[in-house]
Amino acid sequence: MNKLFAGIEAGGTKFVCAIGDSSGTILNREVIPTTVPDETMPLVIKYLQDNYAKTPFSAIGVASFGPVDPDPNSPTFGYITTTPKPGWTMFNLLGALKKHFQLPMGFDTDVNGAALGEYRWGAGQGLDSLIYYTIGTGIGAGGMLSGKMMHGMMHPEAGHMFIPHDKVADAFAGVCPFHGDCLEGLASGPSIMKRWQVKSALDLPPDHEAWDLEAKYLAYAMANTVMVLSPQKIILGGGVMKQQQLFPKIRQKTVEFLAGYIKHKNIIENIDDYIVPQGLPGDSGICGAIALAENAFNNL
Amino acid sequence: MNKLFAGIEAGGTKFVCAIGDSSGTILNREVIPTTVPDETMPLVIKYLQDNYAKTPFSAIGVASFGPVDPDPNSPTFGYITTTPKPGWTMFNLLGALKKHFQLPMGFDTDVNGAALGEYRWGAGQGLDSLIYYTIGTGIGAGGMLSGKMMHGMMHPEAGHMFIPHDKVADAFAGVCPFHGDCLEGLASGPSIMKRWQVKSALDLPPDHEAWDLEAKYLAYAMANTVMVLSPQKIILGGGVMKQQQLFPKIRQKTVEFLAGYIKHKNIIENIDDYIVPQGLPGDSGICGAIALAENAFNNL
Repeated sequence: MNKLFAGIEAGGTKFVCAIGDSSGTILNREVIPTTVPDETMPLVIKYLQDNYAKTPFSAIGVASFGPVDPDPNSPTFGYITTTPKPGWTMFNLLGALKKHFQLPMGFDTDVNGAALGEYRWGAGQGLDSLIYYTIGTGIGAGGMLSGKMMHGMMHPEAGHMFIPHDKVADAFAGVCPFHGDCLEGLASGPSIMKRWQVKSALDLPPDHEAWDLEAKYLAYAMANTVMVLSPQKIILGGGVMKQQQLFPKIRQKTVEFLAGYIKHKNIIENIDDYIVPQGLPGDSGICGAIALAENAFNNL
Repeated sequence: MNKLFAGIEAGGTKFVCAIGDSSGTILNREVIPTTVPDETMPLVIKYLQDNYAKTPFSAIGVASFGPVDPDPNSPTFGYITTTPKPGWTMFNLLGALKKHFQLPMGFDTDVNGAALGEYRWGAGQGLDSLIYYTIGTGIGAGGMLSGKMMHGMMHPEAGHMFIPHDKVADAFAGVCPFHGDCLEGLASGPSIMKRWQVKSALDLPPDHEAWDLEAKYLAYAMANTVMVLSPQKIILGGGVMKQQQLFPKIRQKTVEFLAGYIKHKNIIENIDDYIVPQGLPGDSGICGAIALAENAFNNL
């Protein structure tokens, strides 16, 4: 029988828990609201225990909102660290699971998890490098290079990269509480709402100039991603990217900004296959958590 | 006896050829001008043949100016590709060596080579991720993440990343022929000369405002490097970085730009050990070429 794995996608508003297998099939799932650890974690553990009693799984993977400590050699490995979210600052998420399960456990950021999910079963299959961006309430990025999850000093926080901001064309100061007009400050969902004074980005018609500006800022991020990381593919997800009209605009401007400097065929000829939507819409993260469990089981 | 390795640092103005060993000791070296392949390559091959006759080496490593094709599975692996340098466009550099030597050969960009040299014997010893920037006639970057050289679609070209450019404070349009005011356009040696109308950056005293502006642009690149790549260390070399007064300015502004968002102790407490000069001044590249040979011999 196919080995089973448990995955937890720990998000700022909900925990998605699921049982899946090595084919990427999700057998069942449960969504638990993220309130405070004392409320959320018992429900997560009950889900895992109930499922383990019925169909034992071989490992647990956690893809968590952050920042987190993903370094297995660190004393705070498995912690959510400096989040401002009440109750979760320096919370030992992996430790809470280890009290109940003696199983291999994988742990990474939500966006590294989503990148891994896309790599295993989504738009990144067969590659050994890719970057995944989520563009929504915030902007986050995860990825793998040379077949390994991106880790170093800590993990990427590419949503906060600095990009050109022409204040004559766009006087908006940005919404990032740390940096003002970094990428997240200029191009996250809340920045769209505040700049255009709408309650939801959905209030802006697809041909509104907002989307040209949004595509411009995201294209700067794409160009920088190409030049700093050189991944084989860039996958864009998150609430803002449900605006499908953004994709052709982002691709066109990315090519324009690179200006013939990067002559690789992925850019010159195949940009439509280079900057792409998720292959697992809505499921990149939970599939990634299951893949983290599988990796932990296989000691990868 | 210690195994010997041959290294070639192929630069746009000179080829440095050397024989070294696994301790990073260079036993002898020769500098050959970069003119055209028909003139330069016979001298390179003669150097290698003469040395091989005296003290046989076990592998050859090449760290080359680019762009190059570093993908061993590509039909143009080992080529210098789209360089504008006369005679070297689509030149099969590794192929020219293979005609004369049946040895394991390593091949990468000059900056990835320099990063590898620093990793093996310089400022990056003991780490498994670092980024090396050279800031001179151009700006280039190489590095390793998770102990592997940075490769993906091709290789990093981080010298051309887009950064904020306040045209009110600095109306200079930049010198990059492709992008105008990308990092290289705003912060390379030629940009300093053109902006301040000097024949050499050395004509500017260490307390000239030019260095504050230079440090600002480089600090944006450092902040973006931290957020996109999260390396354990950033090493800065190249002609411009001989201006030692830049280091404290760059460190201070990088911390200022990150604005407390990245709370890692490397940034908060140890920035002096995080953004550092080369550990092998002048020799990162040739040592890296020797390390590429060693890696090829060991099948890494």
